[in-house]
Amino acid sequence: MCEYANMSPAEVRALIRRKEWTKPTSGMAKGFTQANLAILKKDIAFDFLLFCQRNPKPCPVLDVTEAGSPVPRLVAPTADIRTDIPKYRIYRHGELVDEVTDILTYWEDDMVAFLIGCSFTFEHPLMNSGIPVRHIEENCNVSMYKTNIPCVQAGCFEGPVVVSMRPIPEKDVVRAVQITSRFPSVHGAPIHIGNPAGIGIKDIAKPDFGDRVTIKAGEVPVFWACGVTPQAVAMQIKPELMITHAPGHMFITDIQDEKFSVL
Amino acid sequence: MCEYANMSPAEVRALIRRKEWTKPTSGMAKGFTQANLAILKKDIAFDFLLFCQRNPKPCPVLDVTEAGSPVPRLVAPTADIRTDIPKYRIYRHGELVDEVTDILTYWEDDMVAFLIGCSFTFEHPLMNSGIPVRHIEENCNVSMYKTNIPCVQAGCFEGPVVVSMRPIPEKDVVRAVQITSRFPSVHGAPIHIGNPAGIGIKDIAKPDFGDRVTIKAGEVPVFWACGVTPQAVAMQIKPELMITHAPGHMFITDIQDEKFSVL
Repeated sequence: MCEYANMSPAEVRALIRRKEWTKPTSGMAKGFTQANLAILKKDIAFDFLLFCQRNPKPCPVLDVTEAGSPVPRLVAPTADIRTDIPKYRIYRHGELVDEVTDILTYWEDDMVAFLIGCSFTFEHPLMNSGIPVRHIEENCNVSMYKTNIPCVQAGCFEGPVVVSMRPIPEKDVVRAVQITSRFPSVHGAPIHIGNPAGIGIKDIAKPDFGDRVTIKAGEVPVFWACGVTPQAVAMQIKPELMITHAPGHMFITDIQDEKFSVL
Repeated sequence: MCEYANMSPAEVRALIRRKEWTKPTSGMAKGFTQANLAILKKDIAFDFLLFCQRNPKPCPVLDVTEAGSPVPRLVAPTADIRTDIPKYRIYRHGELVDEVTDILTYWEDDMVAFLIGCSFTFEHPLMNSGIPVRHIEENCNVSMYKTNIPCVQAGCFEGPVVVSMRPIPEKDVVRAVQITSRFPSVHGAPIHIGNPAGIGIKDIAKPDFGDRVTIKAGEVPVFWACGVTPQAVAMQIKPELMITHAPGHMFITDIQDEKFSVL
């Protein structure tokens, strides 16, 4: 994996574009920000952008393409959003209808691509401070839960905030808040510490998405707003056509993680 | 002025709505965030929102109304954007055609209002740390300059970043960076320290907007991205109709300044 970790984002994207890499992107082009993808038609793109703007913690927008342009000029000006992700999912009216390695045949002139920040960006600084990140240790997906916290509605878009959970040793909770506070544009500080019931989570052992992870004695569940929120919310209105990345198959930007810190 | 400083935002807005206050809002409802206003038609609103999203330092969006709704639900759910600002300016094709105390007769069903953060929000924390804010001491407008730094284009919107300048004593420059870094959603950290020519400013004594202020010996000019940028950029495309607040006559939100700090 080391050779992929040391590649530049452009090199990894070229590999993906040539379909020489169709697996998850975790660990590739280390230090560079990976992003979630959601593609919608222009007629609902304004309301979706507004939704993200009103809910910056779960929906940190890193880049939005011009309608019809496949180039994310802000975060990867040499990339093509239609070919540079290893696996895409095509949804029609909210139903998964296809999984593909490029979307050239699905692309239309009125499509707008949203690249949304992901918590990978703050997990490295946590680990660099000696704070364990359990789902990485256990080599599984992060635990995610629907909460009773409503997002702020925008047009037809509404729904609950989805959170990701990381068990943090009691002594490290304050430091974890400080570290992630430095990254407001990739979810930022936690939105809840401790008691799952306080945000409407009935059973911490049963995540709504992702995998269950071990919570050890002396660890506190800490909850961050999660980038699954905007996809879940968009899916709920069953748009005619929506394209996303396949879970774990992210878009790799040219931006280094540290660029998203404010201090 | 003290009675106005201690009023709640809703009380001040009621006063303005009854046209009992038609002057600048500086110092009213102390501690609550004041915002710039730009109203555009829905057909160009997506590109404008995209422009703001791509240029968050000069264009920190605090709220955007649904098309046709005059209610900024996020920052002041009981307010009416058409009546709650003391003075508005009406621009047709980029020309100032009217200055009014409400926009009820100008309001149309496809209008979208943008409320954009303003540096008032970080000036109080600066002063609370004993850092002088010269234009407040000299009771004039802040000095603003066009730079040679281009904004990231979005659709038809493009132009240079406009900056505001505050002379800061050398010993306080680091602290000023730290304090304003805490407020990324209202311009955040400075974008330049020192040498005006470095960002294309030819004569520091001749601001492009606002007033000239005294720079004392031992003080360094420090430059922050300025909320005048999005208005200047929008004006440049000469939209059919655009409505803004009159300078200094701001919208007062229900949000306390400190809510915008990330740490």
